[in-house]
Amino acid sequence: MPIQVAVLQESRPQEKRVAMVPAVADKLSKLGCNISMLSGAGLASKLPDSAYSNVNFVTSAEQLLADADIVLAVQPPTTSQIALLKPGAILISFVYQHKEADLTRLLCDKNITSFAMEQVPRISRAQAMDALSSQAALAGYYAALLGATQLARILPMMTTAVGSIRPARCLVMGLGVAGLQALATARRLGAITEGYDVRPETKEQAESLGAKFVDTGVDARGEGGYARELTQDEKDKIASVVTQHIQQADIVITTAAIPGRPSPKLISKAQVEGMKLGAVIIDLAAEGGGNCEYSVPGETIQQGQISIVAPLNVPSMLAEHASELYAKNLLNLLQLFVIDGEIKLDWQDEVLAKTVLTHQGEIKPAAVKAALTQQQ
Amino acid sequence: MPIQVAVLQESRPQEKRVAMVPAVADKLSKLGCNISMLSGAGLASKLPDSAYSNVNFVTSAEQLLADADIVLAVQPPTTSQIALLKPGAILISFVYQHKEADLTRLLCDKNITSFAMEQVPRISRAQAMDALSSQAALAGYYAALLGATQLARILPMMTTAVGSIRPARCLVMGLGVAGLQALATARRLGAITEGYDVRPETKEQAESLGAKFVDTGVDARGEGGYARELTQDEKDKIASVVTQHIQQADIVITTAAIPGRPSPKLISKAQVEGMKLGAVIIDLAAEGGGNCEYSVPGETIQQGQISIVAPLNVPSMLAEHASELYAKNLLNLLQLFVIDGEIKLDWQDEVLAKTVLTHQGEIKPAAVKAALTQQQ
Repeated sequence: MPIQVAVLQESRPQEKRVAMVPAVADKLSKLGCNISMLSGAGLASKLPDSAYSNVNFVTSAEQLLADADIVLAVQPPTTSQIALLKPGAILISFVYQHKEADLTRLLCDKNITSFAMEQVPRISRAQAMDALSSQAALAGYYAALLGATQLARILPMMTTAVGSIRPARCLVMGLGVAGLQALATARRLGAITEGYDVRPETKEQAESLGAKFVDTGVDARGEGGYARELTQDEKDKIASVVTQHIQQADIVITTAAIPGRPSPKLISKAQVEGMKLGAVIIDLAAEGGGNCEYSVPGETIQQGQISIVAPLNVPSMLAEHASELYAKNLLNLLQLFVIDGEIKLDWQDEVLAKTVLTHQGEIKPAAVKAALTQQQ
Repeated sequence: MPIQVAVLQESRPQEKRVAMVPAVADKLSKLGCNISMLSGAGLASKLPDSAYSNVNFVTSAEQLLADADIVLAVQPPTTSQIALLKPGAILISFVYQHKEADLTRLLCDKNITSFAMEQVPRISRAQAMDALSSQAALAGYYAALLGATQLARILPMMTTAVGSIRPARCLVMGLGVAGLQALATARRLGAITEGYDVRPETKEQAESLGAKFVDTGVDARGEGGYARELTQDEKDKIASVVTQHIQQADIVITTAAIPGRPSPKLISKAQVEGMKLGAVIIDLAAEGGGNCEYSVPGETIQQGQISIVAPLNVPSMLAEHASELYAKNLLNLLQLFVIDGEIKLDWQDEVLAKTVLTHQGEIKPAAVKAALTQQQ
């Protein structure tokens, strides 16, 4: 019996991605999987049914999910989708358990083996499964474009018959995957770029992309590749150095998101007041409330002559490539346990052990289990 | 008595530009001009009153215009603004007489000396006054950005942990000032670029920007530098080559605008049907009806999986730089007749003679006069 793989139709507003693209369907099919999707599930990613050659299209969620051994999605499934899953089925998607306590309990109660894509460990071997990184790279690129279209100036130097236009200055705060792509893209467009991060090891990376690094002398390296939380003294010290750079910039792109926690405020209201007329802030940390005190998640606001843009779900704006990279991340994870046409979960595998959220009626990560038990 | 210069507040919807910027006000002031503006007239260009140091701000159009010797604007003035002008005043703005017959007659009847910026001759000496070119350069840059933000793919090659993304293909049709800037910007963003124009001399310019020139294999050069009549075979050959390039592109930017005439249709409905899923057309010729048969001026439409974007007044989206370049164009024109603190119109000057639209109760260009007389 081939493994039955079902791909969910995304239903959250503004979600244009899909968890399966034609090239990945072809590969999964060769691994011994039968893939089913709802008709039209790829359309928002510009993928009509006809673009897929190894997918069985169905017209109802019941049909799709009744026999599914493995269910793939981008966003967390809805409760009604979970209700249709057969007990013991495997789900792979973003789950965001820190926001989705009820959903996590439901997956547990339904005896679903769920893998949460945001939990893929940041180790070398798992890079090819790291969807947070693949999606962040696209978001960083798009942030620079958004900044350029929101700004009423051009980024490159331009020599015209009436004189030269000087290049714009773009400051990127937070030099993870998204920040580095934002720097690279702003630089491509001809801006003078500056990068800032509390982790000093990002200096070399910023400089390799032609950017100047803003050095504040504070080392904030934390566990797991993320920045640790800073003390007030450290924040003040950084602010005084960084304020100057913020206020010289035409575009400021902030990317300091900490999964499961509110985004740190990197730009205060007072700092905004001193910015150049017409400057633009692109806040990529809007999902966690934003890096700027003025940010309103999902909206573009004007504060005096400054525009503050805090878009949600930026990878979805590049749905075709975002779906492609995400589907490939899923494929690489699936290859860890779809072996010779059978599902063989090896819990000694660090990636599976760290990515699993629920299995056989249990919440696996100890911290999550403790937190959810406490809440009840 | 210093020359009284009034800068109009723009009133057309979506017009964010302003005909005066601080640096130009400073220079004009040194030429012996007293500059007045309505308070807040620069705000849409991110220029509050406080940004200007040599401007007298007033609060009513009556105050602004009663004594004005010279009136500057971007868009054609309204009839109520013209009513406030003193007879014999000089107006410099875009007028678009082919769309604005009534306005042209009114300027004539009011005895206004009007210079229409779209009539600045395309000769070397007038390059610094050529607002069509300065604004087109910005529009071309912005068109590439619009294409990149509308496309659900990224433009550059990107190497990720799950493999490489191939660069997007961008075809630019019409290689004037706007088209060349669009090519340059798409190339900066990492796209593979192709340029097409019926004028073979544009080949070298496209190639100097790293683009491939679409070679149809048909040489349309005839005697005296004019295009010769093509045979049906030749027309078919051109169409089939161009179709192939349109249909391989991720982004097509069209820029074939002919002032005062409907834009030629460069992309047929049939050609759109065969385009890549998710492709984007940016039609910069929307003011004249558009270069694509599907274009709806001012709107973004979806035709199957293809997006067709036909924006109006693109330079206004870069209002700060557009205002800066436009104001400098005006300054250079003004310097032809503001001499030693006095207005000295020399009709032997080719630029003034070709740019003037109405003077002393007469419509000056013979063709315009004939056309307007016929209409009555």
